[in-house]
Amino acid sequence: MTDVRRKIILDCDPGHDDAVAILLAAGHPSLEMLGITTVAGNADADKTARNALQVCEVAGLPETLPVCAGASGPLVRPRLPASKVHGSSGMDGPVLAQPRRALAPEHAVDFIIRMLRESAGDVTLVPVGPLTNIALALRKAPDIAARIEEIVVMGGAYFGNKTPAAEFNLYNDPEAARIVFESGAKLTMVGLELTHQAVATPAFLAEVAALEGAVPRFVSELYAFVTQTYKAVYGMDGAPVHDACCVAYCIDPELFTTRHLNVVIETRGEYTAGMTVIDRGGVTGRPPNVDVAERLRQERFWPLLLETFARYGQDGTA
Amino acid sequence: MTDVRRKIILDCDPGHDDAVAILLAAGHPSLEMLGITTVAGNADADKTARNALQVCEVAGLPETLPVCAGASGPLVRPRLPASKVHGSSGMDGPVLAQPRRALAPEHAVDFIIRMLRESAGDVTLVPVGPLTNIALALRKAPDIAARIEEIVVMGGAYFGNKTPAAEFNLYNDPEAARIVFESGAKLTMVGLELTHQAVATPAFLAEVAALEGAVPRFVSELYAFVTQTYKAVYGMDGAPVHDACCVAYCIDPELFTTRHLNVVIETRGEYTAGMTVIDRGGVTGRPPNVDVAERLRQERFWPLLLETFARYGQDGTA
Amino acid sequence: MTDVRRKIILDCDPGHDDAVAILLAAGHPSLEMLGITTVAGNADADKTARNALQVCEVAGLPETLPVCAGASGPLVRPRLPASKVHGSSGMDGPVLAQPRRALAPEHAVDFIIRMLRESAGDVTLVPVGPLTNIALALRKAPDIAARIEEIVVMGGAYFGNKTPAAEFNLYNDPEAARIVFESGAKLTMVGLELTHQAVATPAFLAEVAALEGAVPRFVSELYAFVTQTYKAVYGMDGAPVHDACCVAYCIDPELFTTRHLNVVIETRGEYTAGMTVIDRGGVTGRPPNVDVAERLRQERFWPLLLETFARYGQDGTA
Amino acid sequence: MTDVRRKIILDCDPGHDDAVAILLAAGHPSLEMLGITTVAGNADADKTARNALQVCEVAGLPETLPVCAGASGPLVRPRLPASKVHGSSGMDGPVLAQPRRALAPEHAVDFIIRMLRESAGDVTLVPVGPLTNIALALRKAPDIAARIEEIVVMGGAYFGNKTPAAEFNLYNDPEAARIVFESGAKLTMVGLELTHQAVATPAFLAEVAALEGAVPRFVSELYAFVTQTYKAVYGMDGAPVHDACCVAYCIDPELFTTRHLNVVIETRGEYTAGMTVIDRGGVTGRPPNVDVAERLRQERFWPLLLETFARYGQDGTA
Repeated sequence: MTDVRRKIILDCDPGHDDAVAILLAAGHPSLEMLGITTVAGNADADKTARNALQVCEVAGLPETLPVCAGASGPLVRPRLPASKVHGSSGMDGPVLAQPRRALAPEHAVDFIIRMLRESAGDVTLVPVGPLTNIALALRKAPDIAARIEEIVVMGGAYFGNKTPAAEFNLYNDPEAARIVFESGAKLTMVGLELTHQAVATPAFLAEVAALEGAVPRFVSELYAFVTQTYKAVYGMDGAPVHDACCVAYCIDPELFTTRHLNVVIETRGEYTAGMTVIDRGGVTGRPPNVDVAERLRQERFWPLLLETFARYGQDGTA
Repeated sequence: MTDVRRKIILDCDPGHDDAVAILLAAGHPSLEMLGITTVAGNADADKTARNALQVCEVAGLPETLPVCAGASGPLVRPRLPASKVHGSSGMDGPVLAQPRRALAPEHAVDFIIRMLRESAGDVTLVPVGPLTNIALALRKAPDIAARIEEIVVMGGAYFGNKTPAAEFNLYNDPEAARIVFESGAKLTMVGLELTHQAVATPAFLAEVAALEGAVPRFVSELYAFVTQTYKAVYGMDGAPVHDACCVAYCIDPELFTTRHLNVVIETRGEYTAGMTVIDRGGVTGRPPNVDVAERLRQERFWPLLLETFARYGQDGTA
Repeated sequence: MTDVRRKIILDCDPGHDDAVAILLAAGHPSLEMLGITTVAGNADADKTARNALQVCEVAGLPETLPVCAGASGPLVRPRLPASKVHGSSGMDGPVLAQPRRALAPEHAVDFIIRMLRESAGDVTLVPVGPLTNIALALRKAPDIAARIEEIVVMGGAYFGNKTPAAEFNLYNDPEAARIVFESGAKLTMVGLELTHQAVATPAFLAEVAALEGAVPRFVSELYAFVTQTYKAVYGMDGAPVHDACCVAYCIDPELFTTRHLNVVIETRGEYTAGMTVIDRGGVTGRPPNVDVAERLRQERFWPLLLETFARYGQDGTA
Repeated sequence: MTDVRRKIILDCDPGHDDAVAILLAAGHPSLEMLGITTVAGNADADKTARNALQVCEVAGLPETLPVCAGASGPLVRPRLPASKVHGSSGMDGPVLAQPRRALAPEHAVDFIIRMLRESAGDVTLVPVGPLTNIALALRKAPDIAARIEEIVVMGGAYFGNKTPAAEFNLYNDPEAARIVFESGAKLTMVGLELTHQAVATPAFLAEVAALEGAVPRFVSELYAFVTQTYKAVYGMDGAPVHDACCVAYCIDPELFTTRHLNVVIETRGEYTAGMTVIDRGGVTGRPPNVDVAERLRQERFWPLLLETFARYGQDGTA
């Protein structure tokens, strides 16, 4: 029997929903996560790297899973203040010790380049933070564009959240987003319209809380915190598990409906920098270049999360 | 008994829906249309001026109603090609003779300035084309900003039609739009989200066709044409009566629900020029400056149109 | 004998050097100044209008010479603070009474349009402040572009003074400048490289002071003040008579050498708005559209000023 | 006796004048060139890398000198066509065999980062092509900014050559230039005003031709070609040795006079992208951040080149 697990690199900035994405990616048998790379975004680069390590420890992931730190700020622009919804650590809520395990010595950008070059063209990139690492990798090693199986981006929106026009991840690094969206690689965009269908409700969180073990407890603590800040900052009843949607899509692309559309990234606008300009009506004549996720099959999504959390044992290990 | 009719100046670029707006404004007893000003937009400036005159003739409007021609192109940018939905005359469909009546000698910009200066602050501007005339008036005579009762703009959108980000009128002259939106005057924005609720359906058009007289026949011919082009260009079943919505709102503001929001105009974007950036979520901290029309009470809107059309006699005259 | 005087409209924002430009234009027999139009720039619009009237009074110019006030701010952008070199009145130095004469009732923009339309195509525009009035006229009445004999602009530079890239007049209204430079009218640009050859030296000012009459005394008082502020603000020994250069060129085009070059106006730059991008090397392939003034024949320029000042009598009148 | 040779990394895109820069850097006893890194610019990335190797072979430089290839295009923008002055190989003129020696396996960006991190803060970067490699290094490893002794950039100008506003190297990658100029590292800018003082005249080239050996012959052949193309493209009598000026400055900073000024890079302009906006007049209030080279002491510069060329023997080796 051959290993048909889908190979992914998760490029993240934990972040509460990033943590859920890591847990889903590491815990599901149909994925092979080659490594975790981190980037500044939801918090500073040193915090997102530390948070990624802490998630690995809580979940008892193998010490051999590389966690590589990457860019500490956007490609061209100044660094923006961190998001308010994630707290001062970037992953507030659970009380966690300093991680015992260490970062891999390789830079995130080099890890991504090496994995793609060593692959048979079967590695999917799953960037769920600002796109700086992916852009740097594409500019340092342009040959990799042709070796990427797919890029599944958490980012963009018909409407923004960070500004009226732009979503947080892409607003943080518009030029990097432009490089990725113009790379020619197969691209699926999981924007706010999709992820706002993936709000962790009290009912779902109750089901998580009913599960045994360290991982469900950790998820419960994460979402107890972030549910409060989403209420305070956005007035939303419940916080989305944004980044986990991308991982879920890698497990089962049938979870989403998508439309193949032209999407370009605005980098020059005074009020619209980082906007994903999505040609839904086909008025521009520009060719489609992105599969835009539109509808989430919730009846399959939430059980997928619960099953995977349940698979982790008392010590976390899946 | 005092005259409590609301005074308006209709600034338009006829245009099929502009024609309906003129007919509604001239035919409804609760409005006093001080004049019609025209601007390049749906067609070249000479065509929109001629079309306005032709509508006046068809409807038998008083010869004393001034029709003043205005700007023949945008404030700063080059003139864009005319819209495809209105045909080569800008108002294709009905077969119309050259108008016998003439334009008033005054420039649209000067007419607007003079009416406002002579008024008691009770004149509403209803611009339903590119905002060039209003912007020129504000720049030539900055004192008028404080004398405008309200500006009811047909333009803007959460999503565009001319581009994925911008609506036709504002895309045609983003800098003029910026001047108007930053003018400090009370502003109501009637964008595509509202006007796409005002699609002339076959049922409505059948009711128009059942009315007697020159005006209903003219409207029928207009919408027979533009219904076809909307199908061809946008794939829409039925054409909206965009511009008439603004006039309807002047007659009865209860026809719409609105939200008081901050709206700024993007002028620098590569893909987003002319976009109305609407802060629905209140994330920018910028103060609300515009009443954005959100929902149309269709049950009252369509009867208002039909009643007004019916009021015109055989000779057109209301 | 036919009148071969060259017809000009002086569009200015007095301003010390604007005052000298008015005196030169009104006092020289080879020019017929049809009127003076004013614009915000060196000072607010009400001050520049008042200053123009005061210059007319000091010089005893005919009451029939129209002075028309125009735009009080830039076409699109916010108004910038006034220049520091001209003092709080915009024309500090001489002690002047409130003018007895009044502004003409016509708006500067309308005066310019009317004069051009009534002319035989033989009127030269001499804008020596921000280009707002000229741009508004071109946009309100596009037909005038073909009726302008020439536009002699004081503005632009290889290097700026207001910013490292832009000269004061064009920096104040880049969009207006773009409209004028793209108008297709014959255009001569008198930029800082030319006007900085026209610095009023102590020797020249001594010659002025030696002349009899109200006008030389007025010029002396003006330049006593502005010589000091140029020293303080720019560290320059002597203040240029910038605007007078344009008038001198209308009197005698042989006073300058010029080069026919392509010049475009930057309106989008972060650090370069209002820059005249001059293709001296012919590297762009864009066709020449502007005569750029390069060298001033000083040996003929200063005597021209002195002769003209001397022509005014005791009461100012030339 | 301690080694007081100044350590440099030469980042180049050979290029005729780049070749001279390599020869000067490798042949002068007061410099220790740690390595050569290459970037796309005067020609495609594969050509500039090959050309660098060929120069090393002609000059018999030690095989241990690393030549590392870097970025094959700008950070954000599309790649521009290569310059016309360097011919199809990027270094036309001499007939050269394919190089026997190979590129070092390390990427230019990683070589730069490693050298800086392993240094005692005494390494000078000498980028004489587009600034892409330096920008990528600063973004991949922000810690290096504080470890750079100095960056001596060939690029920028009061006036451009590639456009009226921008010099070729900075125009090719404005965003990279911005990152470097905002890095906080000590920066010397050797722009066109300096390098156009370093034109290889017939007299100088005759002196080169009179020298014995492979290196002077190679330089003669290079400049025979590029002298012709400068005449054809720019109408210049003689081609500058632009890039060699930066190396000469590292050998002897007294060769230049400089001024400490504020310089910012325009990235948004329509006509001015890549412009070095130099605040010579101190009008912006922004603090000085760059030593701008102003005057070349030619009496010391040309002998320095000739001496160094002469030091190479028959086999090239210095």
